[in-house]
Amino acid sequence: MKLIVQKFGGSSVANPERIKRAARRIGRYKKEGYSPVVVVSALGDTTDELLKLAGRITKKPSRRELDMLLSTGEQISTALLAMALHERGFDAISFTGAQVGIVTDSAYTRARILNVSPHRILEELKNGKIVIVAGFQGVNVRQEITTLGRGGSDLTAVALAKALQAGSCEIYTDVEGIFTTDPRIAKDARKLKRLSYEEMLELASSGAQVMQARSIEVAGKFGIPVHVRSSFSNGEGTWIVKEDKRMEEVWIRGVSLNKDEAKLTLGGVPNRPGMAAVIFRVLADHGINVDMIIQNIGRTRTDVSFTVSKSDCDAAMNALKGAARRIGFTHISQDADIAKVSVVGVGMRSHAGVAAAMFEALGKNRINIEMISTSEIKISCVVKKKDGEKAVRILHEEFQLGKKQPVRERVK
Amino acid sequence: MKLIVQKFGGSSVANPERIKRAARRIGRYKKEGYSPVVVVSALGDTTDELLKLAGRITKKPSRRELDMLLSTGEQISTALLAMALHERGFDAISFTGAQVGIVTDSAYTRARILNVSPHRILEELKNGKIVIVAGFQGVNVRQEITTLGRGGSDLTAVALAKALQAGSCEIYTDVEGIFTTDPRIAKDARKLKRLSYEEMLELASSGAQVMQARSIEVAGKFGIPVHVRSSFSNGEGTWIVKEDKRMEEVWIRGVSLNKDEAKLTLGGVPNRPGMAAVIFRVLADHGINVDMIIQNIGRTRTDVSFTVSKSDCDAAMNALKGAARRIGFTHISQDADIAKVSVVGVGMRSHAGVAAAMFEALGKNRINIEMISTSEIKISCVVKKKDGEKAVRILHEEFQLGKKQPVRERVK
Repeated sequence: MKLIVQKFGGSSVANPERIKRAARRIGRYKKEGYSPVVVVSALGDTTDELLKLAGRITKKPSRRELDMLLSTGEQISTALLAMALHERGFDAISFTGAQVGIVTDSAYTRARILNVSPHRILEELKNGKIVIVAGFQGVNVRQEITTLGRGGSDLTAVALAKALQAGSCEIYTDVEGIFTTDPRIAKDARKLKRLSYEEMLELASSGAQVMQARSIEVAGKFGIPVHVRSSFSNGEGTWIVKEDKRMEEVWIRGVSLNKDEAKLTLGGVPNRPGMAAVIFRVLADHGINVDMIIQNIGRTRTDVSFTVSKSDCDAAMNALKGAARRIGFTHISQDADIAKVSVVGVGMRSHAGVAAAMFEALGKNRINIEMISTSEIKISCVVKKKDGEKAVRILHEEFQLGKKQPVRERVK
Repeated sequence: MKLIVQKFGGSSVANPERIKRAARRIGRYKKEGYSPVVVVSALGDTTDELLKLAGRITKKPSRRELDMLLSTGEQISTALLAMALHERGFDAISFTGAQVGIVTDSAYTRARILNVSPHRILEELKNGKIVIVAGFQGVNVRQEITTLGRGGSDLTAVALAKALQAGSCEIYTDVEGIFTTDPRIAKDARKLKRLSYEEMLELASSGAQVMQARSIEVAGKFGIPVHVRSSFSNGEGTWIVKEDKRMEEVWIRGVSLNKDEAKLTLGGVPNRPGMAAVIFRVLADHGINVDMIIQNIGRTRTDVSFTVSKSDCDAAMNALKGAARRIGFTHISQDADIAKVSVVGVGMRSHAGVAAAMFEALGKNRINIEMISTSEIKISCVVKKKDGEKAVRILHEEFQLGKKQPVRERVK
């Protein structure tokens, strides 16, 4: 049995016409001898509409009831897609997460998958059926419905690919694949044929919203090849695979831009051991994730700056003001007018000088760097928001990403 | 524990405002010491919208997938109602049919309940929670979602009342209760305080669409008192209870009108034994329910007329034309221009002359009777459609249903 998992996102099943188009594609695979297991998201903006309904009833909906509510969106898509496949003469059957044994913990609205029982799916595949599974959802051990958080259908797809030992996992979306950068920003952006899980992960967390970060992690952990491709064309998309030697030959795989963060600065913090711990414990206790952190040490007092998601900015300000006495800062300020530009590539590990090249290119073009952070395969700089897109174009050019053979060894 | 089952129909939860209103009422019961178990239908026209979506994909949706699709409507209502109760400070928890063990057979779109496991509900009630259950749905033994047919939420409510041994079952709807006849037709129609299961059943099947017929049957079988009342006012509605002696003192409980049937006539059918069996077997094999039947026997040939639901009329015509040779009729005709007027009352059993009084009243007013059928507690006449409402008014008057003390013994 040539088992393949295919995930269709919300834009790929936004209306009956698109559902029919997805059915056509799935049917083609079935005819070619594949056994498709299809994961679907909710139709277009169903989730937002359901949230709006809930919002007319309460400002603080219970997480359990939210999951009960939102999980219906995916259930609707599965049934409609099954009907569309029937209409084309294929035998298909739809399932909720509960019905195929996607068991999660009880962290409603952001549950983690604990186990997937492949029995029922395998049974139906053996009967020649195309199996359709509602993405984004599962049940806890008490059979209470849970959801997996934004982009959770990607995770459903990868988890099923793992449990069913599928050859690969296709993610159908509204873009052609992963690009060296956003083609709307740099016209010569190129579609990448292959990149590693790590690179994809860094790109995802730096603003390229094609796939949910956790699902990439899981795919990487189990070595499941993921094919990100368009549901509107037949061309090959981008394969996300295990890193290999050849990948390291290229310095930089891509440039990403994130305009969803804000910078907070605490000024005049007493320069005592453990002070940073106090600050970030306060934020953690309020459930606020911090991205970049810099600290300028003075003699007795110091400045601490960090970035958070814009939607958390007010909460972070309030949390810190509430702990003002404990921390002892003299002033606090926020700046939402920033952009984070990142260059990503596994080649960075074996090639020195990427950071220097990046900073030089930005400096030469009079773009001021406000913060810097680095990982093994990524370098991020915070710049003024108005400079964000320009910085992307400069770096895309600097690392010759628009060319078929981008820079391999920089001439010093 | 003063357990009470309360069912809210689609119009009672049509939008967030109405859901809040339902929550207010449920909360009041909770404060008075009741333990409410609430059954909800889908919001207003959700079901029709989902059917429209399916219709854009296929003309003949699979019944299994239809149930998968339609069951989401009730799931949405349960979650929203739970949120509304939380908002008012009550502890509430929602469940799908599957989650509370409503097990049915596998007859998708019209499944029958086989068993209800009350454990989970009782556990949550003991924890002080208000329990909300999605109506209209269940699962078969393989955990595949089934639905119970039009009006199935009534059945869910009655089945839960039985399984939980609730004191009574409240059906909230958009009318004040059951009336002697439709108040839009006869201005002096009175709300009935009590009527028997049998009377309600005959009224339901003769056009009074307040409650699903099967749910009345089940309530009667287990002697569960049902209170039909308005979700828009606090007044008492109508109690449907076991028949008692006092009820028999009243001749007629109510008059109903059904304009949803059509009459078919087969002319010149050979007058041979078994011919009627052939005709109605053909219809049964096509899943068409027949209501009234009359046969006028001639010497060698005979005419057979019967009524079916208007929506089945074309299918019935085609089925019979397909069997024309076997049946051997000389012509076939249909008439959708009819109305069925029925008088219902358990008192009929012990009082002779109801039929005569009914026919006389219609005759005196020059209303022609095309067909007649009788049961122990009901007499129905088919008349021209244009005469339907007039006939209702005449009979409502004849049997003095507008008066507080309707006719008990007719003066001959």
